[in-house]
This record gives sequence, structure tokens and C-alpha cells, in this order.
Amino acid sequence: MLKNIPPILGPELLATLRAMGHGDEIVIVDANFPASFLGPRTHRADGITATDMLDAILTLMPLDEFVDEAAIGMAVVGDPQARPPIVAEFEAMLARHEPNFRFSTIERFAFYDRARSATALVQTGETRLYGNIILKKGIIRPAA
Amino acid sequence: MLKNIPPILGPELLATLRAMGHGDEIVIVDANFPASFLGPRTHRADGITATDMLDAILTLMPLDEFVDEAAIGMAVVGDPQARPPIVAEFEAMLARHEPNFRFSTIERFAFYDRARSATALVQTGETRLYGNIILKKGIIRPAA
Repeated sequence: MLKNIPPILGPELLATLRAMGHGDEIVIVDANFPASFLGPRTHRADGITATDMLDAILTLMPLDEFVDEAAIGMAVVGDPQARPPIVAEFEAMLARHEPNFRFSTIERFAFYDRARSATALVQTGETRLYGNIILKKGIIRPAA
Repeated sequence: MLKNIPPILGPELLATLRAMGHGDEIVIVDANFPASFLGPRTHRADGITATDMLDAILTLMPLDEFVDEAAIGMAVVGDPQARPPIVAEFEAMLARHEPNFRFSTIERFAFYDRARSATALVQTGETRLYGNIILKKGIIRPAA
């Protein structure tokens, strides 16, 4: 373990996060998500909730302020205006770490398509439905 | 880049630091040090000083409080009591990040032997002589 780094971020996931550049996307997915055969490298985080993983990643990773939507969930199938309980938690974490960003959603198969183009996936043990979120990486500005 | 992580720590070095456990050692070495063929994996940090690398690593890595010597330099050949200028900088960084630890030295060939057993080396572009330091990793205690 290291100082200031949440211990659920293991060596390989940490290296992925550090290697990502501006606009690269990482996707935190729940335990039902078809991650392993989608294409991008999948980091396993069995036993970890999607909300804990989001909290850990946002501790280190800035979101992309160059786009309107940098934190994107999956809309409820057949009821896209619905807000599953886990979404309220995602929004609370965003508000805490990155208050300038709002959470948005896209339709299930559009989410899969976008996840195929991601840098990496993190498959958690999250059992709550719709526990999926795409995060688009932003920039660290030079020290003033 | 990531929040709270010095950007001279690249993805692979960051993964190594995160993977190291209690008592594992990493060695920051200068540009003259015979690192690449010594045995352990060598991370390259060309153009970076040993002092900047020490500063970056101590931001994240705790030192081992279970031993008397957790930050060990190379003694000046033929004059083991000498304190090269870079040692004063090493000591100042230790005092800032890990005030409970003192810097000690071992003889040149003993340093090589110990470096052979390290988890990894980080070869910097440091041109000041004796810009080498072994760091023994400590623990992160559970949150109270």
C-alpha cells in the first residue's frame, strides 16, 4: 500500500489510470456486465462495490472539463427517466470530488458500444443493477 | 497524470511501488551506477535528479519503522565519514517526509550487494556523485 492512494486500487489498475491521457475513458461496471469479452483490458475488483471504486478512482483521476458529459451511466431499460438508487450515490460522489460535473446516462447498447472503445474496464462485485459508469479523463494543469 | 501523484512517477514505477510490501527495498541510483545488469528490474528516469525522485517516492511510500536503518546511502570510497553535498539534500527530504528516520551509509560493494536483492532500481540522470539511496518500505496502518 501507499500513502494517499486508496488500497482497492491495485498495481495494475493504478498503472492504467496513470497511463491514461486526456479524453481516455475507463468504465466501472457491475457484476452482471459483459466485461471480459468486450475488448478492452478488464481489471477485476471482485468483492468491491461500484460506488467504492468510483470513490477511489475520483480521488486520483480528474474528469474532462472539455466536454459536457464526462461521467455517464446506463439508462434503465424501458424507463430512461428512472433513477435507480445507485445513481444517487454516484451523483453524491461526483458532487464531492468533481462538483462541476453532472451525471448523465446513455441507452444500454450505446453504453456497450462506448465501453468497447474505452481504455480499460474495472469489473467490480457490485450487485445493484445499473452500477455502471464511464469516466472520461481530464487534465492536470501545470502548477501556477 | 493523476491528482496527488508526482508526475515523474510513471505507470510502471507506480505499479512497482504499489506492489511492494513491508520490508521490500527500492534503490534510487545516479547516472553512473551499474544498474541495468545488476539483476532487479530497473526503471529509467533519465533527466531526473536523485533528489527529485526521492522527494516523489517519499510522497507515497512509508519507510520501515521496524528496523533502525530504512534509508541507506553509499559511503564515500576511502573516506566513509565524508558527507557529499547530495547527502544533505537526502537528509532534508527525509526530515520533511519521514522525520523519525535517519540516513545511514554502507560501503560501495556492500551497497551493490544489497541492491542486488532489491525489488527494483530507479536509475535517474543524477550526475552528482553518491546520488544513491536504498529505501525500505514500511506499512500503512489501518484507519483508526
